[in-house]
Amino acid sequence: MNPESFSPQHFRWSFDAGVARITLDRPERKNPLTFESYAELRDAFRALAYARNVKAVVFGSTGGNFCSGGDVHEIIRPLTRMSMPELLDFTRMTGDLVKAMRACPQPIVAAVDGVCVGAGAIIAMASDLRCASPEAKTAFLFNRVGLAGCDMGACAMLPRIIGHGRASELLFFGRSFSAEEGKAWGWFNEVVPADRLDEHAMEAARRIATGPSFANGMTKNQLNMEWNMSLETAIEAEAQAQAICMQTRDFERAYNAFVAKEKPVFEGD
Amino acid sequence: MNPESFSPQHFRWSFDAGVARITLDRPERKNPLTFESYAELRDAFRALAYARNVKAVVFGSTGGNFCSGGDVHEIIRPLTRMSMPELLDFTRMTGDLVKAMRACPQPIVAAVDGVCVGAGAIIAMASDLRCASPEAKTAFLFNRVGLAGCDMGACAMLPRIIGHGRASELLFFGRSFSAEEGKAWGWFNEVVPADRLDEHAMEAARRIATGPSFANGMTKNQLNMEWNMSLETAIEAEAQAQAICMQTRDFERAYNAFVAKEKPVFEGD
Amino acid sequence: MNPESFSPQHFRWSFDAGVARITLDRPERKNPLTFESYAELRDAFRALAYARNVKAVVFGSTGGNFCSGGDVHEIIRPLTRMSMPELLDFTRMTGDLVKAMRACPQPIVAAVDGVCVGAGAIIAMASDLRCASPEAKTAFLFNRVGLAGCDMGACAMLPRIIGHGRASELLFFGRSFSAEEGKAWGWFNEVVPADRLDEHAMEAARRIATGPSFANGMTKNQLNMEWNMSLETAIEAEAQAQAICMQTRDFERAYNAFVAKEKPVFEGD
Repeated sequence: MNPESFSPQHFRWSFDAGVARITLDRPERKNPLTFESYAELRDAFRALAYARNVKAVVFGSTGGNFCSGGDVHEIIRPLTRMSMPELLDFTRMTGDLVKAMRACPQPIVAAVDGVCVGAGAIIAMASDLRCASPEAKTAFLFNRVGLAGCDMGACAMLPRIIGHGRASELLFFGRSFSAEEGKAWGWFNEVVPADRLDEHAMEAARRIATGPSFANGMTKNQLNMEWNMSLETAIEAEAQAQAICMQTRDFERAYNAFVAKEKPVFEGD
Repeated sequence: MNPESFSPQHFRWSFDAGVARITLDRPERKNPLTFESYAELRDAFRALAYARNVKAVVFGSTGGNFCSGGDVHEIIRPLTRMSMPELLDFTRMTGDLVKAMRACPQPIVAAVDGVCVGAGAIIAMASDLRCASPEAKTAFLFNRVGLAGCDMGACAMLPRIIGHGRASELLFFGRSFSAEEGKAWGWFNEVVPADRLDEHAMEAARRIATGPSFANGMTKNQLNMEWNMSLETAIEAEAQAQAICMQTRDFERAYNAFVAKEKPVFEGD
Repeated sequence: MNPESFSPQHFRWSFDAGVARITLDRPERKNPLTFESYAELRDAFRALAYARNVKAVVFGSTGGNFCSGGDVHEIIRPLTRMSMPELLDFTRMTGDLVKAMRACPQPIVAAVDGVCVGAGAIIAMASDLRCASPEAKTAFLFNRVGLAGCDMGACAMLPRIIGHGRASELLFFGRSFSAEEGKAWGWFNEVVPADRLDEHAMEAARRIATGPSFANGMTKNQLNMEWNMSLETAIEAEAQAQAICMQTRDFERAYNAFVAKEKPVFEGD
């Protein structure tokens, strides 16, 4: 993937100074997902694994909303008519998007304004950081459309973000929660006015992009890998991962900058 | 189990409109557990696995209290005189109650008023949702009676509900915590006045009961199953579980209701 | 280890009434760690596994600070010149300190005043309870020195203490957080004025020391062991662990004290 020239068909992409910005772009319907946008997002996040010059990603909102989930007409209707192998092809494709978002080394910052429901809530969940406007309304609404809350990893990830009891409530009721609740629960890292939301997320991504990006990718990798390791194994895994990072030039750059009383300039190698 | 005619000896049971209600019933001693009530509760929750017409369960309070744990005279005293095989029979029976509460597909709503300590706190912990009156006093008091905090799954479950540091404090001190603390920590989903507590819990259970109960059972199943799966494995497990739910009639009912601009009526198949 | 006569070279140690107190002691540089103090701390915590008469540990602050992490001149500089085998020797030694802090049966209370950064934050994380003064400033600042957040178990433990989203933010930004934030997130159990901090931590440790220390050690053991067990396995593990505790004399002492309407005096056997 060349982030400078990448031009996806089913979502918007921009790239500047190490930061890629993705938005869904059907604001008149609150940015639903379609079969095509799922597949293209999955492929893009998979390609990011090899795109060294992309250091961080913002998944933004458009037209006052983040994402309204799977389109009722373009996704839900066909699903009600599919065979089991076709259904499994679909649920695995959506799961592959989450896997790709977790597997890429770039930290992902979700900037949530307005509606963030269903698969939209999952995209926010699969991101590393989440900021919101006060108008954000998030819902894991699967059980309101007759489905289970176990969609794209929600029963695994949501309890680890906000606690098992709150996650259970959200998944059994499909209820919407506010930006304020999300902040109190550790779902949102920050709530900022809607007109500053995009710039806030971009600024966070730029700060990450100027950090030691190889090491940041290792942090993300270990957060994933240690998900269900024993404590002992996790500590040995980190001894290895951090020893690798200690042989990067960024580590030396930081030391040299400290001695010279300067701010380090990291280059990601 | 026929929920209409089920009449347990050692606790109270009622059933209406898909919702079963359980209360311990020795209010003069704040509803302690006995060997008999442990065993009968375990058997009842095991039977619920096959009771399709029960869609949700409320575990309520009586006489201003939830449960005072194992009775000092009827349980603690005999335990101090038992051999190791007898002790292990007991601790496995109590663990089997938690296993049965987690394994039944029905979401369980604990309605906690007043005293909720020892095995009572464990019953609340093993429930899916917890609401409380402002008078609720919860304590994992095991170390105050000379025992370890690792009782019936507490060292596994409590840290995932309220965080590892808070759980450590509660287990090492056995201290009581308030409804307000419990709400802030994600232990209680809601705090409501004592005179509205039972109705609040029943209303929550009724809302769950009118939802897609097969899918809700799958949500609960996956919350249990994914407890220590890797992220990758959990996402594949959800792809399979959700594909199964997409072949239920409830999913089609939800789609049809949406198109007809009606509220879906779920039937649990 | 004889806690009465133990006299380490690279940190301060005192012992009274079952409670050991450890402080780093280079207040003029905010108590950094050196290769020597890492190794000696690791050995001390390993020895605590066999020191029955030590019932609880306080890891305190000195001169207004907890710990400034690895010394820039004595640790960071040499690390930038090491071969991979030497680096791995170092990261494994630091990981071994965390393993030893988790493996010793004594609950550890960290009393955090002022600076608590890098490996200092890890020492607080590896403790069982954390209290702070309002001046506490904690930072997992690894990425600011060009390294990854996966240091000494942070990617495994921090998400379980404060939630995955907040942990991600701290690890990707290396930002400092306040005592107030730490309390709200479940990182700190208590915030008390600086001039009362040490006494508060000592009092907590003394309360733990007068508890059933064999059972408390089992609680800590199970919190570690059940880290990545399935729910079913964890519940069986607790059935066994608690049955063992039911054969201690402390359990009988508690029952006898209850019957006699006295306060139990635990002896840890």
